[in-house]
Amino acid sequence: MAHPVLFSLEPALPLQAPLDKGLDAEQGALEMRHFPDGESYLRVLSPVSGRHCILLVNLLQPNEKILPIRFLAHTLRAQGAASIGLVAPYLSYMRQDTIFNPGEALTSAVFAELISSTVDWLVTVDPHLHRYHSLSEIYSIPALAISGMPALKAWITNQPDALLVGPDAESRQWVETLAQAAGRPFLVGNKQRHGDREVRVSLPAGSDIARYRTSVIIDDVISSGHTVLQTIGALKRAGAGRIICAAVHGVFAEDADRKILDAGADQLTVSNSIPGDYSAFDLSPLIIPAIHTMLADIDHGGRRDQQS
Amino acid sequence: MAHPVLFSLEPALPLQAPLDKGLDAEQGALEMRHFPDGESYLRVLSPVSGRHCILLVNLLQPNEKILPIRFLAHTLRAQGAASIGLVAPYLSYMRQDTIFNPGEALTSAVFAELISSTVDWLVTVDPHLHRYHSLSEIYSIPALAISGMPALKAWITNQPDALLVGPDAESRQWVETLAQAAGRPFLVGNKQRHGDREVRVSLPAGSDIARYRTSVIIDDVISSGHTVLQTIGALKRAGAGRIICAAVHGVFAEDADRKILDAGADQLTVSNSIPGDYSAFDLSPLIIPAIHTMLADIDHGGRRDQQS
Repeated sequence: MAHPVLFSLEPALPLQAPLDKGLDAEQGALEMRHFPDGESYLRVLSPVSGRHCILLVNLLQPNEKILPIRFLAHTLRAQGAASIGLVAPYLSYMRQDTIFNPGEALTSAVFAELISSTVDWLVTVDPHLHRYHSLSEIYSIPALAISGMPALKAWITNQPDALLVGPDAESRQWVETLAQAAGRPFLVGNKQRHGDREVRVSLPAGSDIARYRTSVIIDDVISSGHTVLQTIGALKRAGAGRIICAAVHGVFAEDADRKILDAGADQLTVSNSIPGDYSAFDLSPLIIPAIHTMLADIDHGGRRDQQS
Repeated sequence: MAHPVLFSLEPALPLQAPLDKGLDAEQGALEMRHFPDGESYLRVLSPVSGRHCILLVNLLQPNEKILPIRFLAHTLRAQGAASIGLVAPYLSYMRQDTIFNPGEALTSAVFAELISSTVDWLVTVDPHLHRYHSLSEIYSIPALAISGMPALKAWITNQPDALLVGPDAESRQWVETLAQAAGRPFLVGNKQRHGDREVRVSLPAGSDIARYRTSVIIDDVISSGHTVLQTIGALKRAGAGRIICAAVHGVFAEDADRKILDAGADQLTVSNSIPGDYSAFDLSPLIIPAIHTMLADIDHGGRRDQQS
């Protein structure tokens, strides 16, 4: 099988170069522009007939991206691509995973159905799996969710004398595992949510936080930053020293990065899943084997149950 | 059958009120907002079980609208709607109606397929049918394309001593019919296109344009305005008096309206298909019978071939 072709719908995605290199992939050439009325023009310039095609996308602000993804996938298929997979390091529309109030759109399922009818497989990192236990509950294509925590663990191992702090019960799964793997102490706070944007975090009494030179707040994603901001406040009140905020995905919506630094965090540390200024660890060594698994499954004719 | 329910995904669409009234429809109530990462939240508040639902959309800047349309349609279906139709007075993605260069996305077909898998029928006004002769070539649902020219004709009848001017051969179909129906003289220019945005228009020699008090440039859509700007220039050189630019759809991309007025047009006249400042005639009397046809077909169990 020829080298796969890796396409990106936007320039300068930080994972493009390491994935090209690690997969020994050809960088797919595209012409993309917009007409004055907002319609997209798209042209595939690389030969793709008989080749595996991989679309690397950043699904932040997903609404405007779904049509270009679909245009590209259809065109690759028309050009005879052997397969078309989506690598979405950050997976959108995982939040609305149930109908909380009658009449609500179950956007997670509608989005997943649309992606499943557009590409042949999906690889993502730490999607927000809360009420869903597996992507296979909503994705009908092989969909592999890998954890970015091993990459974060490697980074944490280089932070001496660090206390790991999980803001809430949900983060315990990562914090506890990371702490054990890196040989670090940890604690887990208590979060109460009031509406979309208001949360309160409290830390366990008697944690002796002031004793540690560095506290590292750990989360899967920093989005609006409200949870992290609350945790910083709680740490400050407990006499914490240096504070680092670490997460796999740095969404940093609504200037969250600036707000977090203003609130007294000394450092932000996220992966290269989303373009931004705070990328400190690379997910490609974790994503590449997942892509190889997907391509091998296709080459061997069957689709194993690769859902996770 | 109960009154239909008319939903709009954005507030203040100019056709909402006249369609509500003319269809005796209930205005559908929605809750819509966005999360900080750009994801949509949508909730249907009106009861729709067993009722015909109509989605009125403005498909300018279509990319960001396709997911909300799909979320709404899926949710209405989940709530038991009898049928879901799309009223898109201006239909997007009709421009790329063939593959001009190898590797180009045939966006018209991909978009049409997506809409066809989202709603049960489509009504639109003067879509750009150039290489396609009928919407049925790309839409697999009943899709009715009506002409907005009768509404423009009623407006033109009130312009005394007007010369109707079609910029190019393509506009002859409208200009000739309008001129005959309104009892006005007309002429048709010659347009040469150089790239997406550059066009040249020349008018037939010896047209005696200076003799008319008013010249009305007629087109189906004013988008970037390049064609209209060229036609204004040609009319000015020929000694035209008052110049009016009339079209069914006023897209006015990239400040085209200001450029056209700066170039010496005295007036812009478009329908209420797209929100804007120059709406001078109402399409609802033409759209309402088309919607009635669609709903009657569904109520009578069959789907006649309503493609046009």
